[in-house]
Amino acid sequence: MGRPRQTGHNRLVATRAIPSHSLSMSQKRPVFYISDGTGITAETIGHSLLTQFEGVEFETTRIAFVDSVDKAQAAAAQIREAGERAGLRPVVVNSAVDMELIAILGDSGALMLDVFAPFILPLEQELGMKRQARAGKAHGLVDFAAYEARINATNYALTHDDGVDLDYGEADLILVGVSRSGKTPTCLYLALHYGVKAANYPLTEDDLEIDELPKRLKPYRRKLFGLTIDPVRLQQIRTERKPNSRYATIEQCRAEVARAESLFKIVGLPSLSTTHTSIEEIASKVLAQFGIQRHMF
Amino acid sequence: MGRPRQTGHNRLVATRAIPSHSLSMSQKRPVFYISDGTGITAETIGHSLLTQFEGVEFETTRIAFVDSVDKAQAAAAQIREAGERAGLRPVVVNSAVDMELIAILGDSGALMLDVFAPFILPLEQELGMKRQARAGKAHGLVDFAAYEARINATNYALTHDDGVDLDYGEADLILVGVSRSGKTPTCLYLALHYGVKAANYPLTEDDLEIDELPKRLKPYRRKLFGLTIDPVRLQQIRTERKPNSRYATIEQCRAEVARAESLFKIVGLPSLSTTHTSIEEIASKVLAQFGIQRHMF
Repeated sequence: MGRPRQTGHNRLVATRAIPSHSLSMSQKRPVFYISDGTGITAETIGHSLLTQFEGVEFETTRIAFVDSVDKAQAAAAQIREAGERAGLRPVVVNSAVDMELIAILGDSGALMLDVFAPFILPLEQELGMKRQARAGKAHGLVDFAAYEARINATNYALTHDDGVDLDYGEADLILVGVSRSGKTPTCLYLALHYGVKAANYPLTEDDLEIDELPKRLKPYRRKLFGLTIDPVRLQQIRTERKPNSRYATIEQCRAEVARAESLFKIVGLPSLSTTHTSIEEIASKVLAQFGIQRHMF
Repeated sequence: MGRPRQTGHNRLVATRAIPSHSLSMSQKRPVFYISDGTGITAETIGHSLLTQFEGVEFETTRIAFVDSVDKAQAAAAQIREAGERAGLRPVVVNSAVDMELIAILGDSGALMLDVFAPFILPLEQELGMKRQARAGKAHGLVDFAAYEARINATNYALTHDDGVDLDYGEADLILVGVSRSGKTPTCLYLALHYGVKAANYPLTEDDLEIDELPKRLKPYRRKLFGLTIDPVRLQQIRTERKPNSRYATIEQCRAEVARAESLFKIVGLPSLSTTHTSIEEIASKVLAQFGIQRHMF
């Protein structure tokens, strides 16, 4: 893993002679997600923070596994250089916990946002103990049971995708919807993150001709969740997959979606439109619906 | 989505008459991840914080989509009740940003850890503007391009899984390893989170008989990354899949792993053992190796 980290920036390099103010309008603010582990915590909270400042352009860089003085110094140099190039003070969202490494990173001149720092003392006081600072622990080592649950759930999602295997006895839940309404990625996300065994069943034209649940789904009524989607969006997605097919016409998309939504209503299925919804949010809403609390890290 | 949220707790309920101290040794500390959106940010940072307090038992509950006074009051009641049941003050890791909702949650008596609060003011000062507090934005709405990249990458991972389609021209990277070394979940994770087109190629016994790359992989030398695994662990995983098969014997697992690791060395492939590594960490290390910076939220 010793290859030099790439930032992938191909923009023109601003020399230090140019006053930073004259550039700041057109430059993106450099933001670094730094971690002694995977960087997932720093990146997640950092991303959430940045979305609250609309209109500001950021250029984000992840530097993971910063767990030594050498790596911290290399990161600090990269941060400093990015700031000089942009003519803007960089922001560092940092989840490393070693004070020596934090100090080195701080020497870069960046605004340091240490994501754990504000919460450690109150937690220590509440729990009546000192935290044990272990590098990169949160998303690192896992117990085999949790790993196995995720892998098994992923295999389950793969074998119960798209109506391949219709025995849903083991399913925690079953997503139902027309082709390309977002079922497969949601099932895989639920499996990988939550160890949830999520199957999915594509509503075919035959299914949509009757105003009741497909026979194969009837025994699993309480496990069902409907996904729907805007027909125009569906047409775009299907066109990318099968251009010029009947499947991808707006008429077909409109008809299928209308019948699917009507079915959800008649049968009383909980459902959700995926049109403007991220995979994370679909997954969260499905879990909330079924009251599932698991989260595998 | 109006169903009452379930906590899934089945433990005995401690009555209020029992002094809380006599219970506290055996009770788990209630922790709530509260959010006006999916709860992913609160849960990610909260989980990272809790792992720093080894030996403390926590009982975590996610309450997502708390975006109204009613929902905040319901959450506060649930938090208060959990604290009374456990005889321990609950901890709330909160990512909701509306001050009114935060105040209601705080009335529960829990220790409030507001994950954004400490970082907003320094960022506002640095950026010279006020943040726009929009509920549940970070993991909610996404632009179609990012969504499409994730979906396309997921489809790619599915069609280029396990050597099904060997045309790797479009692949961002290709994971190589023996059967059940962790390739498939890693590819799906890379696709869902980063929109990375990750294929995987299973090293067969035939491949392992020669000390060079399989012919199909040679054109893609720079896209390859090896996964390996402890043979004992591999045996466990394979036994679960195909009990009593030759495939799952320790001899077979030892031989395959030894030859695969030797191949990685001879050919000079970067590689990683998945034995004690979470899917997140494998994915992060693979991305760091290839210098890939993308992250789709």
